[in-house]
Amino acid sequence: MHGNVKVFSGSAHPAFSRRVCAHLGLPLGNSKLVRFSNQNMLVQIEENVREADVFYIQPSCPPVSDGILEMLITIDALKHASAGRITAVVPYFPYSRSDKKDRPRVSITARLMADLIETAGADRVLTLDLHAPQIQGFFRIPVDQLIAAPLICQHLSQGSLADHVLVASDIGEAKDIERYASRLDLPVAIIDKRRYTDNARPVVRQLVGDVADKTALIIDDEIASGGTLIEAATFCLERGARAVRAAAVHGVFSGQALDRIEAAPIDSVLVTDSLPLAEEAVASGEPPRPRPAKVEQLSVAALFARAIEAIHDGTSVFELVH
Amino acid sequence: MHGNVKVFSGSAHPAFSRRVCAHLGLPLGNSKLVRFSNQNMLVQIEENVREADVFYIQPSCPPVSDGILEMLITIDALKHASAGRITAVVPYFPYSRSDKKDRPRVSITARLMADLIETAGADRVLTLDLHAPQIQGFFRIPVDQLIAAPLICQHLSQGSLADHVLVASDIGEAKDIERYASRLDLPVAIIDKRRYTDNARPVVRQLVGDVADKTALIIDDEIASGGTLIEAATFCLERGARAVRAAAVHGVFSGQALDRIEAAPIDSVLVTDSLPLAEEAVASGEPPRPRPAKVEQLSVAALFARAIEAIHDGTSVFELVH
Amino acid sequence: MHGNVKVFSGSAHPAFSRRVCAHLGLPLGNSKLVRFSNQNMLVQIEENVREADVFYIQPSCPPVSDGILEMLITIDALKHASAGRITAVVPYFPYSRSDKKDRPRVSITARLMADLIETAGADRVLTLDLHAPQIQGFFRIPVDQLIAAPLICQHLSQGSLADHVLVASDIGEAKDIERYASRLDLPVAIIDKRRYTDNARPVVRQLVGDVADKTALIIDDEIASGGTLIEAATFCLERGARAVRAAAVHGVFSGQALDRIEAAPIDSVLVTDSLPLAEEAVASGEPPRPRPAKVEQLSVAALFARAIEAIHDGTSVFELVH
Amino acid sequence: MHGNVKVFSGSAHPAFSRRVCAHLGLPLGNSKLVRFSNQNMLVQIEENVREADVFYIQPSCPPVSDGILEMLITIDALKHASAGRITAVVPYFPYSRSDKKDRPRVSITARLMADLIETAGADRVLTLDLHAPQIQGFFRIPVDQLIAAPLICQHLSQGSLADHVLVASDIGEAKDIERYASRLDLPVAIIDKRRYTDNARPVVRQLVGDVADKTALIIDDEIASGGTLIEAATFCLERGARAVRAAAVHGVFSGQALDRIEAAPIDSVLVTDSLPLAEEAVASGEPPRPRPAKVEQLSVAALFARAIEAIHDGTSVFELVH
Amino acid sequence: MHGNVKVFSGSAHPAFSRRVCAHLGLPLGNSKLVRFSNQNMLVQIEENVREADVFYIQPSCPPVSDGILEMLITIDALKHASAGRITAVVPYFPYSRSDKKDRPRVSITARLMADLIETAGADRVLTLDLHAPQIQGFFRIPVDQLIAAPLICQHLSQGSLADHVLVASDIGEAKDIERYASRLDLPVAIIDKRRYTDNARPVVRQLVGDVADKTALIIDDEIASGGTLIEAATFCLERGARAVRAAAVHGVFSGQALDRIEAAPIDSVLVTDSLPLAEEAVASGEPPRPRPAKVEQLSVAALFARAIEAIHDGTSVFELVH
Amino acid sequence: MHGNVKVFSGSAHPAFSRRVCAHLGLPLGNSKLVRFSNQNMLVQIEENVREADVFYIQPSCPPVSDGILEMLITIDALKHASAGRITAVVPYFPYSRSDKKDRPRVSITARLMADLIETAGADRVLTLDLHAPQIQGFFRIPVDQLIAAPLICQHLSQGSLADHVLVASDIGEAKDIERYASRLDLPVAIIDKRRYTDNARPVVRQLVGDVADKTALIIDDEIASGGTLIEAATFCLERGARAVRAAAVHGVFSGQALDRIEAAPIDSVLVTDSLPLAEEAVASGEPPRPRPAKVEQLSVAALFARAIEAIHDGTSVFELVH
Repeated sequence: MHGNVKVFSGSAHPAFSRRVCAHLGLPLGNSKLVRFSNQNMLVQIEENVREADVFYIQPSCPPVSDGILEMLITIDALKHASAGRITAVVPYFPYSRSDKKDRPRVSITARLMADLIETAGADRVLTLDLHAPQIQGFFRIPVDQLIAAPLICQHLSQGSLADHVLVASDIGEAKDIERYASRLDLPVAIIDKRRYTDNARPVVRQLVGDVADKTALIIDDEIASGGTLIEAATFCLERGARAVRAAAVHGVFSGQALDRIEAAPIDSVLVTDSLPLAEEAVASGEPPRPRPAKVEQLSVAALFARAIEAIHDGTSVFELVH
Repeated sequence: MHGNVKVFSGSAHPAFSRRVCAHLGLPLGNSKLVRFSNQNMLVQIEENVREADVFYIQPSCPPVSDGILEMLITIDALKHASAGRITAVVPYFPYSRSDKKDRPRVSITARLMADLIETAGADRVLTLDLHAPQIQGFFRIPVDQLIAAPLICQHLSQGSLADHVLVASDIGEAKDIERYASRLDLPVAIIDKRRYTDNARPVVRQLVGDVADKTALIIDDEIASGGTLIEAATFCLERGARAVRAAAVHGVFSGQALDRIEAAPIDSVLVTDSLPLAEEAVASGEPPRPRPAKVEQLSVAALFARAIEAIHDGTSVFELVH
Repeated sequence: MHGNVKVFSGSAHPAFSRRVCAHLGLPLGNSKLVRFSNQNMLVQIEENVREADVFYIQPSCPPVSDGILEMLITIDALKHASAGRITAVVPYFPYSRSDKKDRPRVSITARLMADLIETAGADRVLTLDLHAPQIQGFFRIPVDQLIAAPLICQHLSQGSLADHVLVASDIGEAKDIERYASRLDLPVAIIDKRRYTDNARPVVRQLVGDVADKTALIIDDEIASGGTLIEAATFCLERGARAVRAAAVHGVFSGQALDRIEAAPIDSVLVTDSLPLAEEAVASGEPPRPRPAKVEQLSVAALFARAIEAIHDGTSVFELVH
Repeated sequence: MHGNVKVFSGSAHPAFSRRVCAHLGLPLGNSKLVRFSNQNMLVQIEENVREADVFYIQPSCPPVSDGILEMLITIDALKHASAGRITAVVPYFPYSRSDKKDRPRVSITARLMADLIETAGADRVLTLDLHAPQIQGFFRIPVDQLIAAPLICQHLSQGSLADHVLVASDIGEAKDIERYASRLDLPVAIIDKRRYTDNARPVVRQLVGDVADKTALIIDDEIASGGTLIEAATFCLERGARAVRAAAVHGVFSGQALDRIEAAPIDSVLVTDSLPLAEEAVASGEPPRPRPAKVEQLSVAALFARAIEAIHDGTSVFELVH
Repeated sequence: MHGNVKVFSGSAHPAFSRRVCAHLGLPLGNSKLVRFSNQNMLVQIEENVREADVFYIQPSCPPVSDGILEMLITIDALKHASAGRITAVVPYFPYSRSDKKDRPRVSITARLMADLIETAGADRVLTLDLHAPQIQGFFRIPVDQLIAAPLICQHLSQGSLADHVLVASDIGEAKDIERYASRLDLPVAIIDKRRYTDNARPVVRQLVGDVADKTALIIDDEIASGGTLIEAATFCLERGARAVRAAAVHGVFSGQALDRIEAAPIDSVLVTDSLPLAEEAVASGEPPRPRPAKVEQLSVAALFARAIEAIHDGTSVFELVH
Repeated sequence: MHGNVKVFSGSAHPAFSRRVCAHLGLPLGNSKLVRFSNQNMLVQIEENVREADVFYIQPSCPPVSDGILEMLITIDALKHASAGRITAVVPYFPYSRSDKKDRPRVSITARLMADLIETAGADRVLTLDLHAPQIQGFFRIPVDQLIAAPLICQHLSQGSLADHVLVASDIGEAKDIERYASRLDLPVAIIDKRRYTDNARPVVRQLVGDVADKTALIIDDEIASGGTLIEAATFCLERGARAVRAAAVHGVFSGQALDRIEAAPIDSVLVTDSLPLAEEAVASGEPPRPRPAKVEQLSVAALFARAIEAIHDGTSVFELVH
């Protein structure tokens, strides 16, 4: 029904795009990003895409605003170049934590992002673990959401989890933990934090459940500055945990996150490669750094490749991940 | 900037509409719903609404589909009658639990409802406690969401809460409990249920936290069939709770819910009047029944009246509820 | 150009859907409608529809509002399930008599229905005998309208029509009669009714034309409560008609219509199977009843099957029916 | 709610626009139409219209295509000139007889006209006697439709109608006659014409009802080429009518219509001034001609002026005409 | 990906459409334009176009407004006839000089034209040398713009250009001259005209550059009334030019242009066949005239045929023209 | 018609916003921009804006992408905060040089910017000297474009221009020079550059016109990297110019532009304050630098203030600048 598959990569995470293409047995499409001295960008698609079934891969990572605009400009260029169908492949969706109006006169920016992507001309979106499943409802175009939990649980199960307790670092973010708890058949504990006014920083109040003499395995959908994770780890150790590990889908590791985690009493951190890690983060313009010892990356490139094939062939994406 | 305020009521909950109008000191607008023998409805607005600032009140309750279509038809009639601005006042939003795609090939029906309301011609929406705050992002038109927690907490605080523990009946639904816990300064406990396959009924696995010798105050955003509530109550009592109470924003009480709750080991249930209760439920066509003894209703009519005034006058709605 | 044909049935008229599928030589697609205790519906498409050329069959019949919402929810589910093309097959279009604004501040609900179907995501509509041909102009998406008159005339011509006069029961609804008069080459008579104020019930004033010693064959596009038909029959008999027969495309038969027609001085009534009749009306929740003796049903299932094939193959639908 | 009323006239019927302005006590707005040698038009609004409540008057008459484009260009100019609200006043709606798809692969051009007017930027439409009332449903923007029947009936009633019979010249166009019959309390007769194939010219078959020794008063919504009217008049006279008169809302009088009517056995023709008549038709570029003796024009300018006031003031338009 | 190519011609320039079809080896599609006595048009597509890849050819030429409406009506008819894809082929784009708002309260009519074409239902546009390249940005649908300069330069190069100077007749229109200057490697001169108030007619002030003893080859994108061209030619001769020639993409030749050019001191004029010339201009209703001796037409029909093939096959259009 | 004027400033050029507010006699609205460690931005409007007539000022300058997203997020926040009307005030429009598709498969990014601004929710745009006047046609919402030429010419006229020649540095960009030439009544000269292939850097070929013994006053709409300006200056001096000055509307001064201009043989450069200059450019994060000696800034803040007043009051903006 659609022309040949062509995969293009934005400048956010070309290593991931190459991994996906390797699984697909396809070359990466030719395109060029020029940054003029006035900081304007020119995206040039350097091969014919008329009628092609185009997948454009761009997770949201630093420089965040440049990455979003590069994505919108590229989708617009592809549309006006008469691409047959354009799927925005966004392994980490931009502004996915700005998904509600929890104070007056703010933007629900995740919804705005959905609108901008539709306006630019995308026909579909393929993404991984949105911060809230409701974000899928922000789009009028079809969205396929992949889920990393099966892969993560499978990986964790290769080691012994005998004394592990799954820990959610906030009641408000605990909803995802059930997905892991069911698969790993482990008990859970939840850190009860309170925000005494709407804008106040949440304060840890108690641990609901028990981690004494256990290994606390802290689960979250993303690790950003690392502050929440380190606070949770410290709190678990205070409550008698024997050790602390962490697993999350998206390794954002913003600011000094990696250094802080290296220094914190956390044994290991497992994330996927939805985002570039240290040495890969070429688009940010910062010098590459060695991969931190504690952080392990689990690749979701094969999962994305299978999803792209399913979208192109018209077979079920849902069954890929459940 | 807008013409005079006019408030119209759908047939879902006229008692509530009258309460709101009483607080506003306005008469209810004249309109008529005719149901033909072929079940088609005719809504006739029986007074001029050109340029008026119209508020149309219709929570979603049985008969649910008729209520939704009546709302869409009325909004369409108001638009073509040249109303200056139309605010759909939906104290209980339809299909708000269908807010994500948690299995393949289903509709995110809450998003569809948002689209239908916009298509019919509403300019704004005013609602109360959406099941998920992200639902606000389903709309392109402005939405004002009122929150009942401050009123509910204030009411609960009038009695002694000395031995109370707040209980969430599901980790996945626990996110709202923090709002109550912070205001009431009470400990929390969470029932850990697991769904072992995507479609399976969740099974209670453990209680995270402690309710022994306490009064369990079960908090939820709505009580529908009552099954979840009664299961949670029974479980708390098994774990040593001294007594069980419940509070929720929306008293849906579908099917035999009220009878089952009367028979269950629950001392009291507090809900708002966002939905008609037993004797008020005239639109459902069933004979009115006496108000159940255990259920107490707290009115949010004054809150809606103040919000309507704020929307009309251009003053802040957010400050009304926070 | 489009994927395989898949036909799904809503719960309005599954017998008709099965007849259409039999003519197509295709199995009916698997889908499931769940009604929760709170009257919310969940439609689950139970087979992969990515890229498929989907036809969803749902005429409007009791329970009318549930049927409309089920249709919108199913179309939304199909769209988000990445169906290649979705054709809403609506043999009897909802609210087709609400096609104009004949009093102030009412909805042109047939137009609203068109908008809602487009909003939900349908790509095309296939329907039968709209109340007014202008309703086709309510859609921005392509509409194919089938016409039952050729089939009905062919069927009537199998008996003797020697002494027949075609009768229209209202000048305002007489426009369709020419279609029958030309094909059957019969004289016509028209009942002149007057509405002396806009909302008044029309009053029969005179018969324009002659039925004395003739068989009056009353033609209408639909029979709803039967009141208009029985009034016309009685009037024709008063003016000397020897007998009365009736033919209509859509047998709505709302309320006590069938019982009233059985008791009225009408010899026979011919309708199509665009709507379920008595024993078939499972979705209404009422107990099935025996088929009334006077009513004969002519199937349009083969016509719809040929139209579906033409739409899929890109051959002319117009030529099917003219 | 809206700024000052400003009325602008297109070049179709400036005499009518001046009459409307006289009733409103307002000067006609300054605008200029330039036609370049390449037939392109430039419309220049020559006074500030920011925030104004603008009414632009342009019925559809020769040169028809120029008139439609002039209207669209003017609306676009007004919108980009920041007019507060733009009401397209279209006393005779273009292409209103192309309101259905009565043969394959044709445009429902009345619907296209509605879409074009919305695209150009009109906020509302004010019109008179659409060919079919369903055309109102072609618009998503509010439409006010005025009805000339009350004025026409009032005018006709000033003479004696003792021996009059109302005649519809086609069953398919008979629906409007009831509106006159009820008001004038006269009998009706209908000419039964048949189209034996879809594209064939209709053939007169019989007169349903009786005109012998009566004055036939032929009613239609418009008189275009006059062919239908003259054919009907001749037929009535053949059936014994004593005399023939005619009344219609819109005097299109295309081609040689006026000459043919002057020569035909018709005593008088009554139309409104929704369209320019002979000596007024300046935009057509043809030399003005004397007003034909048989044709009487009844002005609807005061009716339009009252409707414009009602739209601006937010009072009911419907009550103006019913 | 798309069905068979079908090419239809509007009534503007059927000779060109036939030339394009000849290059494609395809018959012209059957369609019919009926003009009623009331000047309304009926376009009937007389062959099945379901799923077809339809190209509809209609440059903008007299009668201009009729031609634009015929195009919109035809596109609407094709859309509702379920054409698979509709490309509006507009060799000379209507109102392309109305591309900016250079005085207050005027329409940017070229943008309006783009909007109208999209509203009517076109999926793509194929055009030749837009007056300003920015006009491509007026469309949300993909636009392919062909460029005649390579063909024109190739043709001019067949003669000797030894003493030629390229002349732009206005600084404001000089931007295109570089395209010719680079290809022909000739010097340029520019006529400096000034508009001393916004609406004033521009006045020639000086020649920037030198034409003495040279052949002035005046370049423009179109020749309309010829006034600008003749004024420039006269000015060049006054400044010592030996001879004057002219080349332009679009030969509009409005009003008495051809006669005036014949009489002017210009040796030759080269244009393409994007517009009908004299004897071909059947749609204008004027009697055909002999082709003027000085004007030479260069056909772009083969270029359009190759572009249509490229659009259908999904190969690059850009490479055709650069 | 609209509520009170409120002016908010983005972080691009707060000094300019304060100047505009000073002219308006209004305080700048309270808003806050938070940048999280993950580079996501949160814009919080810190005062009630319901029904207000909001003007949001944000020219496009480094960091460009952040500035664009900040603008879109702020407009979205204002819309959902129920602002009565939102005017995006964009003194320098982003990506205004990407206004055409001059190579294959590129984005017309200026059009995309217009679409994004509309999608975010702006009701109007107020801008200054767009690179091409056609860009106004990229918007469906009303755009007011201010023109700096009158102010610049008035300022230049305060000195002696006796020996000045206006120079355009490229034929393709020469269109604006007429605006200055007419007002200043000076001769012009144009640098003829050629691009021998589409992507090639243009090469200076000749000077059309004469600058010998004159002061060359180079006119452009913006100065970006300064490369074009310095090349033109050098070329003029080679052709005998006595001195070189420059004037432009927008002082972009990207990269090392200011240093290069200081070092170049240019006597003075005049620009407006549409963009921050050196010491003002706080948002770029770079340390402030001293204002370069050669560059003079002419403020357009009063012009913007008068335009804001005119938009709010509904008086003519066009007359402000012509």
